[in-house]
Amino acid sequence: MRHPSRVKIVEVGPRDGLQNEARPVAVEIRVGLINRLTGTGLTAIESGSFVSPKWVPQMAATAEVMAAITRRPGVAYPVLTPNLQGLEAALAAKVEEVAVFAAASETFSQKNINCSIAESLERFAPLAARAKAEGLRVRGYVSCVLGCPYEGAVEPSAVAGVAEKLVAMGCYEISLGDTVGVGTPAKAQAMIDAVTARLPVEMLAAHFHDTYGQALANLLAVMERGVAVMDSSVAGLGGCPYAKGAAGNVASEDLVYMLNGMGIHTGIDLDRLIEAGTFICEALGRATGSKVARARA
Amino acid sequence: MRHPSRVKIVEVGPRDGLQNEARPVAVEIRVGLINRLTGTGLTAIESGSFVSPKWVPQMAATAEVMAAITRRPGVAYPVLTPNLQGLEAALAAKVEEVAVFAAASETFSQKNINCSIAESLERFAPLAARAKAEGLRVRGYVSCVLGCPYEGAVEPSAVAGVAEKLVAMGCYEISLGDTVGVGTPAKAQAMIDAVTARLPVEMLAAHFHDTYGQALANLLAVMERGVAVMDSSVAGLGGCPYAKGAAGNVASEDLVYMLNGMGIHTGIDLDRLIEAGTFICEALGRATGSKVARARA
Repeated sequence: MRHPSRVKIVEVGPRDGLQNEARPVAVEIRVGLINRLTGTGLTAIESGSFVSPKWVPQMAATAEVMAAITRRPGVAYPVLTPNLQGLEAALAAKVEEVAVFAAASETFSQKNINCSIAESLERFAPLAARAKAEGLRVRGYVSCVLGCPYEGAVEPSAVAGVAEKLVAMGCYEISLGDTVGVGTPAKAQAMIDAVTARLPVEMLAAHFHDTYGQALANLLAVMERGVAVMDSSVAGLGGCPYAKGAAGNVASEDLVYMLNGMGIHTGIDLDRLIEAGTFICEALGRATGSKVARARA
Repeated sequence: MRHPSRVKIVEVGPRDGLQNEARPVAVEIRVGLINRLTGTGLTAIESGSFVSPKWVPQMAATAEVMAAITRRPGVAYPVLTPNLQGLEAALAAKVEEVAVFAAASETFSQKNINCSIAESLERFAPLAARAKAEGLRVRGYVSCVLGCPYEGAVEPSAVAGVAEKLVAMGCYEISLGDTVGVGTPAKAQAMIDAVTARLPVEMLAAHFHDTYGQALANLLAVMERGVAVMDSSVAGLGGCPYAKGAAGNVASEDLVYMLNGMGIHTGIDLDRLIEAGTFICEALGRATGSKVARARA
């Protein structure tokens, strides 16, 4: 099996996970989670979103969170910025990386952010330009890369087109999201093949949800294509409120366990990661979504 | 990705699943489950075990179950037979296939069946000979192929040695069990490579538990080595009472979903499989272990 010798994990639990909670989580819990994740050896922890609290009340108080966390040198704490106002807030919070997002499905784009794919990209262009001028890295998310809750199948070429445009506007990395978790390994590889026909594989990250239990198998499949950056969520937190039936991200613990077992370097201490998951699950009063955490309990 | 064009699924829920229930399940429920599984297109449904009810009370009444089910031509209903007495009961029940089992770990063999690996194989030799003389197919299980709850790592060559001996005594197929579910993809492939150095891959089946969430990724990995028979359990039923922390088998629904998505033929109707899982989960009063079933609910 061909696979990379090291994989970078982008922990998205504090953002993609907690933004899908029914109620906003207290700032001190969010800070406690991020600080514990910082202690695991992770080098990228998506920590919040500067979006209107009217839209996503769960991500209100991201400025307070960013002010309160203990930042470790060498660890990035990116935030989502849906518009220029969000970018200004991110700059004030002294982040080093922001993320923008677009869908690979027109219907999802309309239902999720109320504009066409092209319009969303137009909106992000000045944001990305200003972020780059300020010395920030910009990451691009593409959602619905393996299927859309409204349209069903999504063409790999549509994914490649959006990814290419995000790179053209300055994104250094494209995170390819199976938002509804419907993908299977061969389709995941075909999607990666379509994107790598236009972009180097080093620019790609895989962001797979585990709604149908396929996420880890899909990550294994795209790793064989050279993908070496993967988004995951401690305790399997997360989901998407706009996508019917979407469950959490693949659990970081289960992903690290697989990579450890394959001798692939991540730099992450699995025991500490499990502790961070236990912390947030106790705070939320829920069972972990990580099978590794359950087996080790 | 190389993979077989068709995969045979051996449904083990009525045996490996239900034998790990805290209490025996009523005969009519077991029969209802097997009959519903028969309606899915499965061609192999492990239906019980002729073992002493003192050892495994959950599998008592297997004779009644076998007498009550509606057998469909072309579908096999194998049973486990730990000894000659069990084989006689299986012959009386007019089964066409029996299964015997050995461990790849000495300590597990001692703790599980109270004898060494060599002794267990000696015991099975006359059983296998008599079964073959009666025209039955004999399947061999090897447990702990990717790790042992007592010994930790298990050498692939130990697995290959036991598998080879089971074939020498007449087994037509060897089901390689990750009993504790600790395996990861590269180790699963290395284990298959060791076994296929001595036996044709066509004789091998993969039987992976999902304790650490790795089962589907591991099945994908061994499929790349040509393994085309896989054991799974509807609703993810199952486990092993002798192995600490062992959770259920990989869920049949999640496996079929993956294979369908890859265009690999199984002959199984996923909707009917989900219905069979709903039936047994309602009868047991528990949530399904299948993410596909949850997403479709």
